[in-house]
Amino acid sequence: MDAMTRIESSLADAVLYAEAAGAPPRLAAALRHAVFPKGGRIRPRLTLAVAAACGDDKPALASAAAASIELLHCASLVHDDLPCFDDAATRRGKPSVHRAFGEPLAVLAGDALIVLAFQTLARAAPCAPERLGALMIAVGDGVGVPFGIVAGQAWECEPRADLSEYQRQKTGSLFAAATIAGAAACAHAEPEAWRLLGDRLGEAYQVADDLRDAVEDEATLGKPVGVDKALGRPSAVAEFGLMGAVARLRRLSQDAVESIPECRGQAMLRGLILQEAGRLVPQKLAA
Amino acid sequence: MDAMTRIESSLADAVLYAEAAGAPPRLAAALRHAVFPKGGRIRPRLTLAVAAACGDDKPALASAAAASIELLHCASLVHDDLPCFDDAATRRGKPSVHRAFGEPLAVLAGDALIVLAFQTLARAAPCAPERLGALMIAVGDGVGVPFGIVAGQAWECEPRADLSEYQRQKTGSLFAAATIAGAAACAHAEPEAWRLLGDRLGEAYQVADDLRDAVEDEATLGKPVGVDKALGRPSAVAEFGLMGAVARLRRLSQDAVESIPECRGQAMLRGLILQEAGRLVPQKLAA
Repeated sequence: MDAMTRIESSLADAVLYAEAAGAPPRLAAALRHAVFPKGGRIRPRLTLAVAAACGDDKPALASAAAASIELLHCASLVHDDLPCFDDAATRRGKPSVHRAFGEPLAVLAGDALIVLAFQTLARAAPCAPERLGALMIAVGDGVGVPFGIVAGQAWECEPRADLSEYQRQKTGSLFAAATIAGAAACAHAEPEAWRLLGDRLGEAYQVADDLRDAVEDEATLGKPVGVDKALGRPSAVAEFGLMGAVARLRRLSQDAVESIPECRGQAMLRGLILQEAGRLVPQKLAA
Repeated sequence: MDAMTRIESSLADAVLYAEAAGAPPRLAAALRHAVFPKGGRIRPRLTLAVAAACGDDKPALASAAAASIELLHCASLVHDDLPCFDDAATRRGKPSVHRAFGEPLAVLAGDALIVLAFQTLARAAPCAPERLGALMIAVGDGVGVPFGIVAGQAWECEPRADLSEYQRQKTGSLFAAATIAGAAACAHAEPEAWRLLGDRLGEAYQVADDLRDAVEDEATLGKPVGVDKALGRPSAVAEFGLMGAVARLRRLSQDAVESIPECRGQAMLRGLILQEAGRLVPQKLAA
């Protein structure tokens, strides 16, 4: 099964769990709306790519790890779109969850997705229960306190924030969780050795996101654009200019590739990361 | 160490984890505000009481399980108090988290507390890693979809809801998680056998909560009162009347005691539950 099929299948299983008879149907519909149809699935593909490079001896566990990372990403999108943050009307080309289902269900759907990420890990763990602790710590630290994406988002509520710390937590931490979890799902891997790859890819992705926010239109992105500038947010474009940000993105991608630990699939993974990184530069800036 | 000291100590460790250098300080302060000073700690005391009755052979794991249940309870209070739900100004005699820190940090603090519950379990698990999966499933199912407290809260967003199903999910599910987790933290226990005790205590507690909302004042409770009636919510008082609700509470407490599974500490636990249940009836109705 290819990576994308594995991811979609694991996510479908997870969301189906919410649709049991006797569960509140509008909450289940809000979860489905938040998770499907697919976004880029960049983070879970990274998890599976690292798992493949590490031997992928328990594919069901790696697939669950990938799904849990994506569920947490979807949760963060639902909550970041709330009126008290971005008040975004659209996401992935559709109404945001609070526009489609109301604010109470958007809060609850985000909460349920966070829990579902951990339920998904736990339900897959019986095939290798001794790996569950490391997986949970990778995933939990990527999303929660002290340095996960929730902490990153909270820097927007502080009087002073350091740009690189803010971005490392807000975006990089879940990329690091994605690479670490991919290794933690496999036998004989050293999960922490994979943190640097995730950190660098996360930073590259954040620069790419800042670039897209600056040069793309809403129809292309499926969400509002120009938000960073309008809200006076820290951004790589504001700091380095457009072409400076492109150069930084390329440098970070190269650094990422060089940080891939020794593993049986190292060459394959290098090729894959370079290919993905190339696609991060908006087309109108690629020349 | 007595139960309350174990609970407060585990919660203090968990919140301290959020206060690492480099973490956003206002988020950490919001977590501390949400968790301390203590509420009744009814659910984590139940977890430790069940663990004690089951032998409590890994006290660090049982304490972490208790803390994780309380962290999830605190998370649900923070999110239920948000303007899009109850818009409560006070909680446990202090300003609610969104009144003290603003709505964005209240959303994020709730999210971080949910994750922290799972981080707390994972960090304690190395002493008995084979028990982590069952613990996570108990805790995850108690809070998430399809039938956890988040699902229960979501019934308020449905056009039709069954009172007993709504209450079982909104309140009972975390009590069931508390009893099941207490057993799952111990060797040789059968966690699922403890669900019925949790279900019945949860229902009793919900009836007690409805009674307090109807007869107590804000100064006694530390939160707004008369909310159920004002919002036209389903409530045992609306359904059975004041004295009918008291009779129901007593019946449920007796049923709970009778559902305690065979275990070495059965007699001790029966006494404890009866004592706690007696305190649930508001004093002005106890005669």
